[in-house]
Amino acid sequence: MRYQLGSDQIPQAWFNVAPHLPEPLAPPLHPGTGEPVGPDDLAPLFPMALIGQEMSAEEWIPIPPEVIEVLSLWRPTPLVRATRLEKALGTPARIYYKDESVSPAGSHKPNTAVPQIFYNQAEGITRIATETGAGQWGSAVSFATQLYGLECQVYMVAASYRQKPYRRVMMETWGGQVVSSPSSLTEFGRQLLKENPDHTGSLGVAISEAVEDAVGRADTHYALGSVLNHVLLHQTVIGLEAKRQLAEAGEGLPNVVIGSCGGGSNLGGIALPFVPDRGEGVRLVAVEPTSCPTLTKGTYEYDFGDVAGMTPKMLMHTLGHDFIPPPIHAGGLRYHGDSPIISSLVKHGWMEAVAYPQGTVFEAAVQFARTQGSIPAPETAHAIRAVIDEALAAKESGEEKVILFSYSGHGLLDLAAYDDYLHDRLIDG
Amino acid sequence: MRYQLGSDQIPQAWFNVAPHLPEPLAPPLHPGTGEPVGPDDLAPLFPMALIGQEMSAEEWIPIPPEVIEVLSLWRPTPLVRATRLEKALGTPARIYYKDESVSPAGSHKPNTAVPQIFYNQAEGITRIATETGAGQWGSAVSFATQLYGLECQVYMVAASYRQKPYRRVMMETWGGQVVSSPSSLTEFGRQLLKENPDHTGSLGVAISEAVEDAVGRADTHYALGSVLNHVLLHQTVIGLEAKRQLAEAGEGLPNVVIGSCGGGSNLGGIALPFVPDRGEGVRLVAVEPTSCPTLTKGTYEYDFGDVAGMTPKMLMHTLGHDFIPPPIHAGGLRYHGDSPIISSLVKHGWMEAVAYPQGTVFEAAVQFARTQGSIPAPETAHAIRAVIDEALAAKESGEEKVILFSYSGHGLLDLAAYDDYLHDRLIDG
Repeated sequence: MRYQLGSDQIPQAWFNVAPHLPEPLAPPLHPGTGEPVGPDDLAPLFPMALIGQEMSAEEWIPIPPEVIEVLSLWRPTPLVRATRLEKALGTPARIYYKDESVSPAGSHKPNTAVPQIFYNQAEGITRIATETGAGQWGSAVSFATQLYGLECQVYMVAASYRQKPYRRVMMETWGGQVVSSPSSLTEFGRQLLKENPDHTGSLGVAISEAVEDAVGRADTHYALGSVLNHVLLHQTVIGLEAKRQLAEAGEGLPNVVIGSCGGGSNLGGIALPFVPDRGEGVRLVAVEPTSCPTLTKGTYEYDFGDVAGMTPKMLMHTLGHDFIPPPIHAGGLRYHGDSPIISSLVKHGWMEAVAYPQGTVFEAAVQFARTQGSIPAPETAHAIRAVIDEALAAKESGEEKVILFSYSGHGLLDLAAYDDYLHDRLIDG
Repeated sequence: MRYQLGSDQIPQAWFNVAPHLPEPLAPPLHPGTGEPVGPDDLAPLFPMALIGQEMSAEEWIPIPPEVIEVLSLWRPTPLVRATRLEKALGTPARIYYKDESVSPAGSHKPNTAVPQIFYNQAEGITRIATETGAGQWGSAVSFATQLYGLECQVYMVAASYRQKPYRRVMMETWGGQVVSSPSSLTEFGRQLLKENPDHTGSLGVAISEAVEDAVGRADTHYALGSVLNHVLLHQTVIGLEAKRQLAEAGEGLPNVVIGSCGGGSNLGGIALPFVPDRGEGVRLVAVEPTSCPTLTKGTYEYDFGDVAGMTPKMLMHTLGHDFIPPPIHAGGLRYHGDSPIISSLVKHGWMEAVAYPQGTVFEAAVQFARTQGSIPAPETAHAIRAVIDEALAAKESGEEKVILFSYSGHGLLDLAAYDDYLHDRLIDG
C-alpha cells in the first residue's frame, strides 16, 4: 500500500531543529586559531544564504519556489506500507518506509544538492567543486549543477573511480567533470601523486582537493553532502512529508523512527521533525556499521571533519579524524565523525544508536528484496536490519507498534555487493 | 509536474484490443503441420488461463485481486509532464510520460510477469523456465516467481551473462537460477557447446533451451515477455492509467502516443487503449532502431518467433527469423519479428512506424537526462528521440500538440552504453 501526496503538497518550509535541541549547539572552531568560526571564515566555501541557515535559530525556513520546482521532479516521495514484509515476519507491527530512492540520483542526496546549488547560483557562483566516495553525493551535485547551469568538478576517490565506473558515467551523463583523486588538478593531489603514483585516495584526500580547488577560484564554491546543520535542514522534507502521509494512512505518531547513519543527513531528514514529539514517546534510532561505530563506540569531543585537519573542528561523536574504516560495501556510512546535531541528540539520550555487522545487514536486504521487491542500497539495509529486529521484538511482546524508516536509496549500482553476499564472498564484521 | 493516482485506482480490468482491430487476427500456425494451433498445442508451455486470454475476443478481462495486490507495490505509476524538456526545446507542445521505470525490476516487464506467474501458480505449476537477452525480462520473472513462491530457471544469452553481471545478480537476489546459454542443462545446449565450447549464444538459442526445459518437466511452464496477445493485454494498464491521469491533468485525448517497439509489449501497453480513439485523430507511433527495422523495412508474412523454428508461425512484420541484428545497446529492440497485433495496426495504416540510428537516440537520451533528471534505458531513448522530433515539428508549425509516451525503463544498468556515447565510442547505425 502506497501513500502518495500531490505535487502541490511538497513542504513550503524546512524544519530547523536547533531551537528544540537539548542544549544550544557548540560552535565550530577554526582549525588554526581554535576560535569559534564566523560567517567570514566560511565565505570562500559557501554562499551567505547557506551560512545563515547553518547558524539559524528560526524554527521554519521557507523553501524558495525555484527549489520546490526542481524537487517536484520526484517529490513528494511515496510512503509505503511494507505489508508483505510484515506478513513474512508474522509481526503485529505496522512498517512504513519513506522511499527516497525515487530521485534521479537514486537517493536522498539531491534534497540538499538542489537548494545548495540554487543558493550558489543566486549569489553568482558558476562552478562547484566537491568530493565523492561511493558516488552518491557526486551524482546528486552533478544532477543539480546541470539543472541550474553551473559547472561541476568532482574529485572521486581513486579506488571508487576504478571500481565503480557506472557512478562516474552517471555523473558525466549529467555533465559533471569527474577526476580520480588524488589528481593533478591540485597542489595537494600532485604532491601525493609524486610520492605514490598509484595512490588509491580517500574521502579525506578528496575533500582536501575540493576545498583547495574552491578556495583558489573566485567563481567556485564547495558543497558538502552531510554532517553540517544546513544539510540536515534540507533533508527534513523527508520527515515532514512522512508525518503527513502517516496521517493519511490513518496512523498517529510512529512509535519508532529508524534511519541509517553515516554523517547523519539521511537520519536527520527522517528523524528531526519528530524531535518535538519526544514527549509523546516517539523513539528515534540511528543505525551504523559495527566496523565504523561512531555513535556507539566513539567519544564526544571536538574533532576535525576531514583527515588532513583542514576543516573547522566540530563537537561530535568521533572515532578520531585519522580513523580509516574497513572497506565495507556501505560506503556512505564510512565516516569517522557525525553530525553535531545527531551527536548531541545521542549524547543526551534523546536518540538511540545501534550497530550491525554487514553480514546480517545483507541478510535483511535480501529478505526485503524478496518480500517487497525493491533492492536496497547497502546503507539503507542497515536501517532495514534494525526495522526487522524491532518488528520481531513486537511479535515477541505482541505490541502493535508503528515503525517508520527511511528507504534512503536503491542498490542498483551496488549489485556487486549482493554478488559477494549471495556467493559467500562477503567479509563480515 | 507529476500526476499520481491512489493505490485504489489501479485498473480492475485489462483492455483487449482484439474486437477493435482492423480485421480479426490470423491464427498462429503449428511449426510442423502448418495447421492453426489450438489450446492443446500450447498447454505444455502455458496455463489455460493465459491460452484463453491469448484467443479471447472479450473487450475487458478482469484482473485478479491477487495480481492487483502485487502490482500495487509500484502501481499506479506516475504520469509526468516534462516541462523542463518542453522549455529547453522551446516547443508549444505539452509532453507527458508514463513512468514505468519505477517497478522493482526497473521497466514495464513486471506488468505481465506478475499475472503470468499468478496464473501458473493457480494451475499448480511450481517452476518457470524462461530466457533473457539484455536481462529485463529475466529480472521481471525472477521478481514475480519469488513473490508467488515458484522456482525460476533463466537461460541468459552467454554474451550478456559475461557482459552484464549486474543483471544476473539482480535475478539471483530475487532467487532466480541463472545459467549462461547455451548451457549443459538441455540437450540442445549440450549439442551447441560440444560444437563450440565458447558459443556466445543468442535469444533464439535461449528460447529453444527454455522451451525444451519446460516441455520436459510436468512441474514447469514457459513464460514469454513480449509479442503474444496476452502479454500486450497485461501491459494495457499503462495506457489505461495514462488516460485517467491525462484527464486529471486537464487534458483531453493526446494528439500522438509514442512508444519504442521491439516485440511490441511496451508500445502495445501505452497505445492499444487509444486504438478506439483513432476516429478522434489520435496518432499512434512505433519507434524502432534502423539496425533492426522490422516495421519500417520488414515484410508482412507468416514467420517463426524464434531462430530455430520451434515456435508457431505468426503473421507479422519480420526481417526473417534468421536475421541477427547488430549488437546495439537497446537489446530489448533486437528482435526480427513483431507482435501480430502491432503488425496488423501498422499494416492497415492505423499506426505509424519510424526508425532511428542509435547515435541520435543517445543524443536525445542525454538531452532528457540533462533537463528532466532521469536517465532512460536505451530502448526508452528511441521513444524520446521521436518525441523530441514531434515537439520540434510542433514548434515549427506552432501547434499546441499533446504528446504522450511510455518511459518504459531506466538506464541505470545500461550506463556502459552512455560511457560509449559520451566518449565517442558508440557505433552509430
